[in-house]
Amino acid sequence: MRYYVTGCAGFIGSNLTDRLLQQSHQVVGYDNFSTGFHEFTTTAKKSKNFSLIEADLLDAAAVKESMKDCDAVFHFAANADIRFGLDHPFKDLEQNAIVTYNVLEGMRANNIKHIIFSSTSALYGEPAVFPTPENVQLPIQTSLYGASKLAAEGLIQSYCGGYGFKAHIFRFVSITGPRYTHGHVFDFCKQLFQNPEKLHVLGNGLQRKSYLHVDDCVDAIFHALENARDNINIFNLGQSNYCLVNDSVQWICQALGLQPELSYGGGDRGWVGDNPFTFLDCSQIRQLGWEPKYSIQDSIVSTVKFLQDNPWVMEKR
Amino acid sequence: MRYYVTGCAGFIGSNLTDRLLQQSHQVVGYDNFSTGFHEFTTTAKKSKNFSLIEADLLDAAAVKESMKDCDAVFHFAANADIRFGLDHPFKDLEQNAIVTYNVLEGMRANNIKHIIFSSTSALYGEPAVFPTPENVQLPIQTSLYGASKLAAEGLIQSYCGGYGFKAHIFRFVSITGPRYTHGHVFDFCKQLFQNPEKLHVLGNGLQRKSYLHVDDCVDAIFHALENARDNINIFNLGQSNYCLVNDSVQWICQALGLQPELSYGGGDRGWVGDNPFTFLDCSQIRQLGWEPKYSIQDSIVSTVKFLQDNPWVMEKR
Repeated sequence: MRYYVTGCAGFIGSNLTDRLLQQSHQVVGYDNFSTGFHEFTTTAKKSKNFSLIEADLLDAAAVKESMKDCDAVFHFAANADIRFGLDHPFKDLEQNAIVTYNVLEGMRANNIKHIIFSSTSALYGEPAVFPTPENVQLPIQTSLYGASKLAAEGLIQSYCGGYGFKAHIFRFVSITGPRYTHGHVFDFCKQLFQNPEKLHVLGNGLQRKSYLHVDDCVDAIFHALENARDNINIFNLGQSNYCLVNDSVQWICQALGLQPELSYGGGDRGWVGDNPFTFLDCSQIRQLGWEPKYSIQDSIVSTVKFLQDNPWVMEKR
Repeated sequence: MRYYVTGCAGFIGSNLTDRLLQQSHQVVGYDNFSTGFHEFTTTAKKSKNFSLIEADLLDAAAVKESMKDCDAVFHFAANADIRFGLDHPFKDLEQNAIVTYNVLEGMRANNIKHIIFSSTSALYGEPAVFPTPENVQLPIQTSLYGASKLAAEGLIQSYCGGYGFKAHIFRFVSITGPRYTHGHVFDFCKQLFQNPEKLHVLGNGLQRKSYLHVDDCVDAIFHALENARDNINIFNLGQSNYCLVNDSVQWICQALGLQPELSYGGGDRGWVGDNPFTFLDCSQIRQLGWEPKYSIQDSIVSTVKFLQDNPWVMEKR
């Protein structure tokens, strides 16, 4: 098969691209390298089945042109930095919703009918039900990021009904592991690499979070593609448990052999729109036979190891 | 108070504007007259408290400039024609979501914190629960129109959490009555005015629909503004019953004194994305003491009367 992967130089997109190439598929990768890294495409570039388009998804003509002859589209490009949405309120709308429209129109122009989309647990806002199932009550949006992903999902779903598209939509918890380049494990490591004596934690450290290793995430995606065949397939992807931010602090410090002095920002949220509790009900994907190989602790420790082994990532961010 | 009304020359927006002026408020009306009519601003223009800005909401600078010194914003401009979304798939995203971003940013620049928004029952897609409450399970979008209004709601909600905005969001069934200029009552009348002998009905006529008279709609909005004081207030607005498309056919023909030969497109939907059953649970707004004055039949008959008295509307559409 010939797959189109947006965000092919990003964290999840590049892991996915490598896996598709391992399975002997052809991959047309598309990235504007705004947050992706050329280093993450090194493995892919060794394959004759990989071609890289360095362009912006806002360039609708380039999207249409480069999508020619592809069989399906993994749309994984995004502005994934939930925390800073309020600093530039157009960015999420543009990078997550409008860009998704360009991808869908590129598909329509090329008669490609299958989209696989990286959505987010953030669109559940602050749910009343834990673990939170896919069909929870219609949420109130608490972040521009979540709102923009919900908008993108709505567009995709409308294209399914209106133009006969098929979609696999995945609502991720925070994904961790090799090539992780943003989020709070990254921030903690960055602080500790700069000063091993001190660590400042946003919020009170009691925020409850769920993480999933990127290998498990990619496994789950392939598992769903093989086993879920509705026109619109929506899956939560996460662990069957959660941890406290303080647990992750402990695991990170342990992995680095450090005992820093801790300070806290206070309050039950790290920032405006931070969700004090994320815990997804993933029984739908589990009922199809998938289960994660890594624990939350494993996935955080493997992230720390990646960041230790690749200090250039921190310099470039 | 000094209110800003987008879509002030549209169906609901112009009715709302007249009511605000009756209450001695000042109104800055904004319309690009793409679907609005100058004729609908005739009453408003007689008031010294009304000023009209003829401009496009895509012109972010004009929005910001004209919003100066307003206390709250009624954002009622929209592409409201759900049926033709698939003919121009960017239109709903642009006119309903991106434009809402411009309105919100205009508010932020002018330190206006209160938005009143015309949303839609279409964002419920094809719900499993009837009557459908506001907190129904997270729906699958079945129209670009519904998807774009859901996107706009998400933006508004994020601005409430992120920037301290306050919102009243109203999810309407089809609104009917004076100044109604699109939708199926309009289409039926148009056909019958052209040829009183024949009427073609999309679908099988058994689609179940709910309608609300525009006066009741405006009453409900003011009632909610007075009585609902959360940061984010979301209300379904509709009738406590529904009718068949065939019922409306009968009432329209009766009102016009006609007995046309009927033909049917067939199928349980009028078009792709048409919802065969719309029936909202409006107990939230009813519990605040509002109830409609007009029956569904009244509201349809008053629409027919308006269209009979204003044949220019059909010529201009």
